[in-house]
Amino acid sequence: MASKASIPKGTRDFSPVEVSRRHYIISTIEKHFKTFGFQPIETPTFENSETLMGKYGDEGDRLIFKILNSGDFLRKVNSDVYNSQDSLKLSTQISEKALKYDLTVPFARYVVQHQNEIDFPFKRYQIQNVYRADRPQKGRFREFLQCDADVIGSDSLWQEVEFIQLYDAVFSSLGLEGVTIKMNNRKILSGLAEVIEESDKLIDFTVALDKLDKIGEEGVKKEMLEKGISENALKNIQPIFSLEGNFSTNIKLLKSLLSDSEVGQRGIQELEFIEKALQSLPLKTAQLDLDVTLARGLNYYTGAIFEISAPEEVKMGSIGGGGRYDDLTGIFGLKNMSGVGVSFGLDRIYLVLEELDLFPKAIEETTKVLFINFGEEEALYALKAVNALRAASVAAELYPDADKMKKQMTYADKRNIPFVVLAGGTEMQSEVYNVKYMKSGEQESFNLEELIKKLSNY
Amino acid sequence: MASKASIPKGTRDFSPVEVSRRHYIISTIEKHFKTFGFQPIETPTFENSETLMGKYGDEGDRLIFKILNSGDFLRKVNSDVYNSQDSLKLSTQISEKALKYDLTVPFARYVVQHQNEIDFPFKRYQIQNVYRADRPQKGRFREFLQCDADVIGSDSLWQEVEFIQLYDAVFSSLGLEGVTIKMNNRKILSGLAEVIEESDKLIDFTVALDKLDKIGEEGVKKEMLEKGISENALKNIQPIFSLEGNFSTNIKLLKSLLSDSEVGQRGIQELEFIEKALQSLPLKTAQLDLDVTLARGLNYYTGAIFEISAPEEVKMGSIGGGGRYDDLTGIFGLKNMSGVGVSFGLDRIYLVLEELDLFPKAIEETTKVLFINFGEEEALYALKAVNALRAASVAAELYPDADKMKKQMTYADKRNIPFVVLAGGTEMQSEVYNVKYMKSGEQESFNLEELIKKLSNY
Repeated sequence: MASKASIPKGTRDFSPVEVSRRHYIISTIEKHFKTFGFQPIETPTFENSETLMGKYGDEGDRLIFKILNSGDFLRKVNSDVYNSQDSLKLSTQISEKALKYDLTVPFARYVVQHQNEIDFPFKRYQIQNVYRADRPQKGRFREFLQCDADVIGSDSLWQEVEFIQLYDAVFSSLGLEGVTIKMNNRKILSGLAEVIEESDKLIDFTVALDKLDKIGEEGVKKEMLEKGISENALKNIQPIFSLEGNFSTNIKLLKSLLSDSEVGQRGIQELEFIEKALQSLPLKTAQLDLDVTLARGLNYYTGAIFEISAPEEVKMGSIGGGGRYDDLTGIFGLKNMSGVGVSFGLDRIYLVLEELDLFPKAIEETTKVLFINFGEEEALYALKAVNALRAASVAAELYPDADKMKKQMTYADKRNIPFVVLAGGTEMQSEVYNVKYMKSGEQESFNLEELIKKLSNY
Repeated sequence: MASKASIPKGTRDFSPVEVSRRHYIISTIEKHFKTFGFQPIETPTFENSETLMGKYGDEGDRLIFKILNSGDFLRKVNSDVYNSQDSLKLSTQISEKALKYDLTVPFARYVVQHQNEIDFPFKRYQIQNVYRADRPQKGRFREFLQCDADVIGSDSLWQEVEFIQLYDAVFSSLGLEGVTIKMNNRKILSGLAEVIEESDKLIDFTVALDKLDKIGEEGVKKEMLEKGISENALKNIQPIFSLEGNFSTNIKLLKSLLSDSEVGQRGIQELEFIEKALQSLPLKTAQLDLDVTLARGLNYYTGAIFEISAPEEVKMGSIGGGGRYDDLTGIFGLKNMSGVGVSFGLDRIYLVLEELDLFPKAIEETTKVLFINFGEEEALYALKAVNALRAASVAAELYPDADKMKKQMTYADKRNIPFVVLAGGTEMQSEVYNVKYMKSGEQESFNLEELIKKLSNY
């Protein structure tokens, strides 16, 4: 019986047009990664489970796809475990490998494993798929591509400056103007928690604050009070609820608010360094904003935090993000390696470019010219030209069968092939090729040399 | 406790140099796929198990990586199955998805699922990883890249001609001369089995014949006899053991040998069509051979069979192969779609290019110029030039920290960065950048405009 043709939920087939469009975005990002001095690495699709488990919290562990051991996987299972019929316990005995969940943990593993071959500071980029057993929904998939660039082995703030420029360069290249690069610093958040004397509630505090644009000022305050943060504390941080995007006004306010917090002052200094550098190195199309509510996985970042918003006219969540983490490789035994990195959200960037009609038309054009097949002799005559065109990097095809003219023309039409060549007995005798422009219907004859010249320059 | 940094056996990390070299091969193959009119598609890393299982024989089923269902996967398991403690039976109840094993079955599934969007004949290429739970050994991995091109929906022999030209174009582009394209036809094999009156033993016959270059004439004959093929039959096919590569001599011999087999005659006609076309469309560097012992997964191919051998001086198995299959999509319910396709073996091509030292040096050069970091003011001055160079597509870096000169120069040296720019107070005052050529040690000063011109053209 024939199997049903379908794919697992949350996964996707990509058609030729989709692959071309995705490739356009990826190659634009990759080009800038390279000019900024990042080097590519790749890691396996699956890692040893112990490399991944416990690195993303309990929720993360649950979302990791596990690979069943091969062969008679029950042979080595402990009988007590088997009899317990406990999925979680059993899974550790019948599965040793898991699909990668992000690129950051495999990167940390890579750095530790290859530390003797690497020249630090190590600027690497990585563009690969990751896998999450999440509930699929609009814009959320179980397999999706991540495009990451990180520097590891230096705590210089110039890197934060460069990552902001990288974002600006990529989005400007894609023609996506009006992107906002929101920046914050974990030290500002720590400082705020410190001055309101709620440092032990730092996580509750920032988780609530991070929701400001979703649930509003009253919502945030309600959640903070529920978590045991005092009325008085809320009064002390009241000014941050009315902050607008302007960088220098915000900094001034933070300076007074955080005057008693050493860590807060350091956060301000870092922000000021970055802002000052960017005054001398102006951004092309992106705008830099200071957003003190930005947290993004607080337990992870230790310094700068970035998040990218699409232009306001498009309803879309963040299309990129990143930040600094002071001890990423520590989990694999290599201490004191500061890292900073950013990620581009390919799927969302795709949707934004599609909505704003920013994909260049040229990327969808595949074959430039189709040669009509009139029979064996004619096909051979056609293939000589096809060969010469291909050698000149012009994508050319011979229709494989000597089918009816109408069928061959319909194929060219549906495939959006702009030129068709008709070369039958007459043309063969005069050693020419008759080109038909599909758009206008116009026809012209060329010898082989002229044909190549004509189609190469089109 | 820190996890150990290691990867699963049979998988690989790729370093920057390896990624660059792999990318060079891939982009060369891809460029030719495109000029030949093939369009890219991509399918998910994992498929529904029923899409893959039973498509590659029992051995294939065993080598398919299965993904454990998420969550409490034991909840729905039938208790009889659980109590049987049978790994195979249990696996079908706790796993619904599997990693793809090749690109051909997912392609067939894609064609059937998207048949209403596709304009046939459909020329597609696909460059993606596949996964096999095979015993890892030299040159055999559990995750590896396949580069496939297929045409589906036409039985024209022009496609066989074009695939031979495609192989020739790719290997010529890679500078790999002396490649042999071995060709056979399943109909020749059927014809041989027919004339020796052993058609019911076709598979045993071809499996044995396929081993000629491994176990020699005596070995093949011994195996055939063991499989019940008669002494008399062996006498009748004796001529094929002494065939050399010459195409027309072989054809002549096959014609007399297969004169009583209709299917054999058709196979000869197909080979002759292809050979005649290629006389008018000569290959650049590859050589075409007729190898009647070539079988390659006999149950699958129905017409042409291809296999590519690396140049003789390199000890390496086949670096590519393919053929025609008459009913690929039938397994998913779409009948009578003839297909023909080829595959490039990336890993082996990589090893061959490495052994013959054929990788261009340029692909390993990453960053072209490193700016030495002398401190905050100087770094800002440097970054202005870095920005301008990047905008001109020159890969440029600022060393992130104002470390000792020696450390920064050592970094440039180890990274093989050909130019270093030194710009301190003196240079800033004269608005110049001092370039040091790492190879010669020579130094020269340029203003920004000259610097960009100099490094863009290098």
